[in-house]
Amino acid sequence: MARRLQNRRRPARSLNQLPFQVPASRIAPVAILSDDEIEAIHHASLRVLFETGIEINSSNARSMYKSAGAEVDAVSERVRMAPELVESLISTCPANWTFHARNKVHNIEIGGNRLAFCNATTPPYASDLKNGRQTGSLENFTKAVQLCQSLNVVHFFYGYPVEPQDLPVVTRHLDAYHTMATQSDKVWRAYAMSDMSDAIAMAQIARGVDDVQFVSEPSLMLNCNTNSPLKIDAAMCDGLIAMSRTGQPVVISAFTMAGAMAPITMAGALVEQNAECLAGMALTQIVKKGAPVVYGAFTSSVHMKSGAVSLGTPEYAQAAIAGGQLARRYGVPYKSSNVNSSNAVDVQAAYESMNAIWSATMGHANIMAHGIGWLESGLVFSFEKAVIDAEMLQMMIVFFRQMDTSQDALGVEAIARVGPGGHFFGDQHTLERYKTAFYEPMLSDWRPYDTWVEGGAKTATERAHEIVGELLDSFEVPPMEAAIREELDAYVIKRKEELA
Amino acid sequence: MARRLQNRRRPARSLNQLPFQVPASRIAPVAILSDDEIEAIHHASLRVLFETGIEINSSNARSMYKSAGAEVDAVSERVRMAPELVESLISTCPANWTFHARNKVHNIEIGGNRLAFCNATTPPYASDLKNGRQTGSLENFTKAVQLCQSLNVVHFFYGYPVEPQDLPVVTRHLDAYHTMATQSDKVWRAYAMSDMSDAIAMAQIARGVDDVQFVSEPSLMLNCNTNSPLKIDAAMCDGLIAMSRTGQPVVISAFTMAGAMAPITMAGALVEQNAECLAGMALTQIVKKGAPVVYGAFTSSVHMKSGAVSLGTPEYAQAAIAGGQLARRYGVPYKSSNVNSSNAVDVQAAYESMNAIWSATMGHANIMAHGIGWLESGLVFSFEKAVIDAEMLQMMIVFFRQMDTSQDALGVEAIARVGPGGHFFGDQHTLERYKTAFYEPMLSDWRPYDTWVEGGAKTATERAHEIVGELLDSFEVPPMEAAIREELDAYVIKRKEELA
Repeated sequence: MARRLQNRRRPARSLNQLPFQVPASRIAPVAILSDDEIEAIHHASLRVLFETGIEINSSNARSMYKSAGAEVDAVSERVRMAPELVESLISTCPANWTFHARNKVHNIEIGGNRLAFCNATTPPYASDLKNGRQTGSLENFTKAVQLCQSLNVVHFFYGYPVEPQDLPVVTRHLDAYHTMATQSDKVWRAYAMSDMSDAIAMAQIARGVDDVQFVSEPSLMLNCNTNSPLKIDAAMCDGLIAMSRTGQPVVISAFTMAGAMAPITMAGALVEQNAECLAGMALTQIVKKGAPVVYGAFTSSVHMKSGAVSLGTPEYAQAAIAGGQLARRYGVPYKSSNVNSSNAVDVQAAYESMNAIWSATMGHANIMAHGIGWLESGLVFSFEKAVIDAEMLQMMIVFFRQMDTSQDALGVEAIARVGPGGHFFGDQHTLERYKTAFYEPMLSDWRPYDTWVEGGAKTATERAHEIVGELLDSFEVPPMEAAIREELDAYVIKRKEELA
Repeated sequence: MARRLQNRRRPARSLNQLPFQVPASRIAPVAILSDDEIEAIHHASLRVLFETGIEINSSNARSMYKSAGAEVDAVSERVRMAPELVESLISTCPANWTFHARNKVHNIEIGGNRLAFCNATTPPYASDLKNGRQTGSLENFTKAVQLCQSLNVVHFFYGYPVEPQDLPVVTRHLDAYHTMATQSDKVWRAYAMSDMSDAIAMAQIARGVDDVQFVSEPSLMLNCNTNSPLKIDAAMCDGLIAMSRTGQPVVISAFTMAGAMAPITMAGALVEQNAECLAGMALTQIVKKGAPVVYGAFTSSVHMKSGAVSLGTPEYAQAAIAGGQLARRYGVPYKSSNVNSSNAVDVQAAYESMNAIWSATMGHANIMAHGIGWLESGLVFSFEKAVIDAEMLQMMIVFFRQMDTSQDALGVEAIARVGPGGHFFGDQHTLERYKTAFYEPMLSDWRPYDTWVEGGAKTATERAHEIVGELLDSFEVPPMEAAIREELDAYVIKRKEELA
């Protein structure tokens, strides 16, 4: 691996990270569509699957759909399903499960009112203020993995934080998995390939569990991207089959950009998203009833003047909330994202991200993909943006905390003691609580202007850059048993020889 | 006035402003507290008003409270009210009304599910990228008024956009009102002073209406800031009395910073906010039953390490949503704010603002104070931030639009026509809609990275600076009848002589 930091033990300055914790929303999910409108989208998408069908490029998957009762055209590779068949198949999707990390403290609950945050996934480029925009490499990949391991708001890895393009394609996944398995002790995600065997083998080795335990304790995820409109390619299908067979969770993720890969109406794009998600969910259940699967939304609009994808927009926010309503309609966990389409780590990146974060949380997403580091519509993993995202997500964790409304907290006696025109600084009610009363930010700076100027007048992005440096300088590789490490190393060496 | 731009008629480049429109939320208000918890806060605040009372520094107001049945101590200036008295007094507060501007197209509905956006209020400084941070002056005040007049998302003026400190204090309000009344045709707000007569006279002249019509058609607002904890000063009280007497709306705005002017618990700060709001609301109804009044929240926390106010935080968001629940408990319109505590127009300013905007909108605020231009916890009106805020608020307007879920919009036929692997660019369903399908941003830039670099790699803040210039260069003073203008001018001259 590019960087071994085990010998460096400089502690980071006291960064105000919250402990690792998956927040639970206490707020009822927000709805922007009526139940009737959700049913209309549901029925329209069933019509699409019955009348138009979906193209399934894996012969293996087509055979499985056919055995389950679908009508399959071998020439056009089109799979059509009757509404009753779809409804029957998806009825066995589980509502929640526990994700098992190699370090138990990083186990997480998926589903219900829980919201897990993940890194940005597989951008081709990385960027930071010092080095600018760089092609993804094992070096910046490793740093990004270390940063995500260091940030407690990253609950698991939703794919490679950046694509290590300097590695040979045929063995790239081995180095990438090895890095995620050793530089982190959180759950990680397999790269979407037909053959999941390396991912499964390495996740199993890293956890030190046998086949039976691995199947009963999911610890690896796959994101199955559809090729919108209405197509799932062979690698995605075969990857899904391998993962569902071993009880590992799959996210069915439609990429329905209204106006390009989907109808230009947001309702139409949601119909298409829903049809694709239902088709993928059905396949997981054909493979194995009760296999964990996630309803993944990625509906937004295309800027019709330029053809550019636009994310974190008002239409995106509507779709994110409506997507949650659809996922709840089917009783499965919901994946949304923290996205933006800015080219710089600027106010646009921040307000589009915050817009996406609020719509995902109000829509009760269970998994926030791309939560950390996403920039340029996903082309770049920005190290500074990662810290900025971490701050925004920490804010949401605190927002979701229960407000104490006990008699003591209502403070009527304290108000009486202080009285009109007084102040609460010295009151006992304050002294008992001031150390932990409020959120202490990692990044935000609330000092008065003059003090801030004396401190160098650093913008939040410049401060984020410093925090990245502190986190990486003080990074410690999470402990791993020597025997497991040797087995992982040996697996990679053996497989590289086989694939060479 | 410092700047007359009537002769310059350079049209702005086609800025993508939405038309002037007050959005309506179609989303049920979000609740973070149970009904029981809201009742607990309500009853605790009634206890505060009964046991501790509130200090009222105006003898006129104290007499009115006393006549209404309150217990008044003339020495301590303390007013205590029994719970039943408070409940009875506030029962006549109206739920909504129409605000009348001198230009009818800028009339706005306040209350219900409507959300009106306003400018940042009375910061002592202004800033822009070119000139940096400057003391408020008539020149930058006038420019800020013109900018807010130009931005369609500013529905009315919530006070001076910046304090014109170069004007003599005794006559400053005359020049400020004259500027707002002539450079804008939107509703404006009176400066909080004991004597509202100049504001009322000038608003009446500008609208060209008589006393009767002015009372029945509210067209001027006052923000009555409490001196938390539990104090309303004489100027605020007397201003409130003058405004309520003439049927003009008053916002009762508590400034309850938990840990300093309010208990350190958010629930305790809400109890104090609620007690102060109820006391002010009661006074408006003592003055005139049915006088329009707004429940104004400004509860956040103080950063206990530095003593700095922190806004747009998770605690702020909780208080903003809970404040909405309390306002709805009393059936009155609700004021929240778009705030942040950043010293720069940076990502922190953007994410704290977006956090405040989402909590205000999900909490069903009817008035978003400080919606445009607020920086540095309110010490600065930033011209660039004003455009950034305008973009964020435009995004919320579009987010609130009804999604079309008609059969045609569901697009099943379009999906069938395009089929698996196709694209929708050329389909009739797209061609019929592409011009107006999606939000077209004023500020956000979604071009691909290379194109953005070729265009100068400008950040959103730099682009906002350019938009400010375009809006000011193309500003046209809104038309006003010559006779009215003469009357306004003469009024100011006469009053300056009297006050000299």
